[in-house]
Formats: sequence, structure tokens, C-alpha cells
Amino acid sequence: MTYCVGLTLNKGLVFMSDTRTNAGVDNISVFKKMFNWQTKGDRAIVMMTAGNLATTQAVVSLLDERSKAPGDRQPTILEAPSMFQVARMVADTLREVVQSHAPAGQSADAAFNATIILGGQIKGSDPRLFLIYPEGNFVEASGDTPFFQIGETKYGKPILVRAYDPDMSFEDAVKLLLVSFDSTIKANLSVGLPLDFQIYERDGFELGAWGRIEQGDAYYATISEGWSEALRSAFHSLPNFSFDGR
Amino acid sequence: MTYCVGLTLNKGLVFMSDTRTNAGVDNISVFKKMFNWQTKGDRAIVMMTAGNLATTQAVVSLLDERSKAPGDRQPTILEAPSMFQVARMVADTLREVVQSHAPAGQSADAAFNATIILGGQIKGSDPRLFLIYPEGNFVEASGDTPFFQIGETKYGKPILVRAYDPDMSFEDAVKLLLVSFDSTIKANLSVGLPLDFQIYERDGFELGAWGRIEQGDAYYATISEGWSEALRSAFHSLPNFSFDGR
Repeated sequence: MTYCVGLTLNKGLVFMSDTRTNAGVDNISVFKKMFNWQTKGDRAIVMMTAGNLATTQAVVSLLDERSKAPGDRQPTILEAPSMFQVARMVADTLREVVQSHAPAGQSADAAFNATIILGGQIKGSDPRLFLIYPEGNFVEASGDTPFFQIGETKYGKPILVRAYDPDMSFEDAVKLLLVSFDSTIKANLSVGLPLDFQIYERDGFELGAWGRIEQGDAYYATISEGWSEALRSAFHSLPNFSFDGR
Repeated sequence: MTYCVGLTLNKGLVFMSDTRTNAGVDNISVFKKMFNWQTKGDRAIVMMTAGNLATTQAVVSLLDERSKAPGDRQPTILEAPSMFQVARMVADTLREVVQSHAPAGQSADAAFNATIILGGQIKGSDPRLFLIYPEGNFVEASGDTPFFQIGETKYGKPILVRAYDPDMSFEDAVKLLLVSFDSTIKANLSVGLPLDFQIYERDGFELGAWGRIEQGDAYYATISEGWSEALRSAFHSLPNFSFDGR
């Protein structure tokens, strides 16, 4: 499994992904699931992947090769005129890879599936965030649904829904994502540290702050322990239930 | 879907279940998923079901009929000498029902599955809580895993894990369950009000307080709204993240 979240804020975009991949619980590895491309002053693009690792690596490699080989006839994500066109290219590449595996070998075509969160900004329009399905279609985040999750989405959703605020700072957004990831990591062995994060500041047209939260990170430990205590206090602050009168 | 939780406390047992059943999102109904049997002074038994409604209703009807027809050769859950034997009877009945549907008609045998939480106390031993699988085997709650969830378990688990305390009062346990159910109901359309709850007090040998939380219940509304606020405060009480030094 995997857990990745992309948030749209008024200030820009925030991305966080875990790095655990597994084929069964007895075969786990660390793989980066966050990728980025930029042309400073013109565009910055971030992508996170969930699903079959062979599929997502093939997609990233294809996008990467095409962006580095200008002679190739394929259009590249570094030249596309809009984020919508970039999303179409990524989606087409994903469908192409999924379909190339599906008919061959085993018939477990569902196992080759992958889902992608894609976000960024290209000069001339606003930052945009997309969720791309293995079928090659995609949806865009909006004010009503300002974030996307992929992978193991359920454990970490309640806190996102309740504490997300489009006006929040990048620092608060990373804190919120760490709480959401911590709830997921505590519940699902297939999601694990280290965590990668990437900030994109609106109208910056280059990638912003990024980092990796490693096992043993002091701030993460504070959040993880502090959240248990904070949740218990929050719980006790609610009015008490009474059986009388029922 | 469904959401049911059974908690073991030092003071006894607490059960809560939702009442929504659905066959697709366009066909929802209200069905009770919590059932009980008792012989005052000797035993009290509570059961909650998730899964195929035809299966769970057949299981309950069979257990019920057998407990009311003393001439029947089948042993009954009102006569079994221990909760372990009750769990075996329920599990056997469940397997019997699942198997009787599986070979006939359509081959969608997985769709006939059901999972059961069973708890109670019989004179001569402690209160016990079991999770029964459709295959007819079962596991028992212990100090390390003091509660069981069935159905849509993920959204509501983080708060249970963090705020559960074996010494908590029944009132606090109901409050905790309402928070857990509220997080689930907010996220999954297939779990819905009204909610049924049932208390069993250790060594009472009869069913304790019970009730139904209906749509529009004032206390539930307080918890549901208060929890959003409490979570946001909890979140803001955590130390702030900083990009410096990373």
C-alpha cells in the first residue's frame, strides 16, 4: 500500500508521500513515490504515485525520457501549454503502461493498476491539482474538494476533513499532513516512514521547500506522541453522555 | 456496509451498531444489527452483525428458534455452559447458513459472507467478547486487543486506539463510540444513524442500559459539532513545524 496527499492552499500546493512498498507483509522496501520536473520561471510539476511499482516507475521513466529527448516526436510535460495538457500526457502514459502489461502474461490486470496525484503551475494560469485514474481519466481539485489522497486513505481522512483550512500556512499544512500520516502509519503496516514532502508556492514557478522525515525525526516524534495526548484532551473536553432520560 | 464496535471494559461490555444496510447507494434501508438474549441471573448475550443481510437474519432466526424450542435436538445458546460454547454455536450456525447459500444459484459466494461480534457473560466466568468469521472460526478480545470492530472499521479506529482506557466509565465509553461513529458516518455514506447501544455490567447477568441515537439527537449533534472544534484545538495545541534547519 501507500499513502500520498496533495493539498491546495491559497498560498500554493503541498505534497506528502510515504516511501513504503510491499509485496506481502514479508517483503517491504523503501521507494520514493514523489517526482518532480521544473523549468525555473516557467513551470513546476510534482507527481505522486500509488499502486503497482513497476507501472509507476515505467510511467515516471517514460515522462522523464521524453522530457530529456527533445528530438522525440512525443510532446513533453516540460513543453505542454497548460497543467491540463500535462495531466492528459501523464494520464495517457499511465494508460499506455497499464494496457501494455494487461494482455500479456498473467491475467491479473487489476494488479498492474496505479493512481497518480499531479500538481503544479505553468505560467499563465493558477496552480492546479489532479487525481489521475488507471483508466487514463482524471479529476481536478476544487474549493469543495481541495485535496486528494491515494493509497490507504481512510485512517488519515477525518483529521484532514476537520482541520484543513485553505488559508493555512505551509508550516501548518505540513503539521496537518504529519498528523494524518501518523494516524495511518499507526494503523496500517503497509504505510511507513520516511515521509517526503514538497511545497510549491503560488506564482513561484520553481519548486519550494522540500524534505524527508526520517525514522527518529524529533519533530515527528513530538507530533506522534503529542497527538495522542491532544486527542485524549479533546475527547475529555466534550460534554459527558448520560443514560438518564433515554 | 455497516459499522459495529464491541468494547471490553473493567466494568463490563459496551456495544454499538449502526442500522444502515444498502444494496448499492440507491437502495438503503434501516435494519437493526444488534440482537440479544438473556436469562436473568444466569446469562446475558449480545450479538452484532455485518455483511450479507439475508445471512445475518437467517443466523439470528435460527439461534432464536432454537432457543425457543426446547424439544429441538440442537443445543441452544441459552443452555450452553460457557461463552466459548455460545461462540461455537453461533459460528457453526453462521458457517451452516453461508454454506447453504454458497453452492446454489449464483457463484458469488463471497457476497453471502457475514462477520459477527458476540459478547456476554454466563455465570461462573468473566465477561467475554468474540469476533466470529464467516468461515466459522473466531478470536477472543484480550488486554492487548480490548475491542473489535466490524464493517467500515478504518475511519473510526484512530480515536478508539488513542482514547480507549479499560478503566473508563460506561458513559465515557458511549461518548467515545459516538465520536468514532461520527467520524465514520461523516466519511462513508453506507454507515448511518440511528445508532443502537447496549451496556452489559460485569456480574449483572442481565442486560444493562440500552438506547437508540436517532437522527436529530441533541447529544449526538453536540458531539458531532464539538468534535470538529475540539480536533482543531488539539491540532493547534501541537508544536509548530518549521522549514528551518531541514
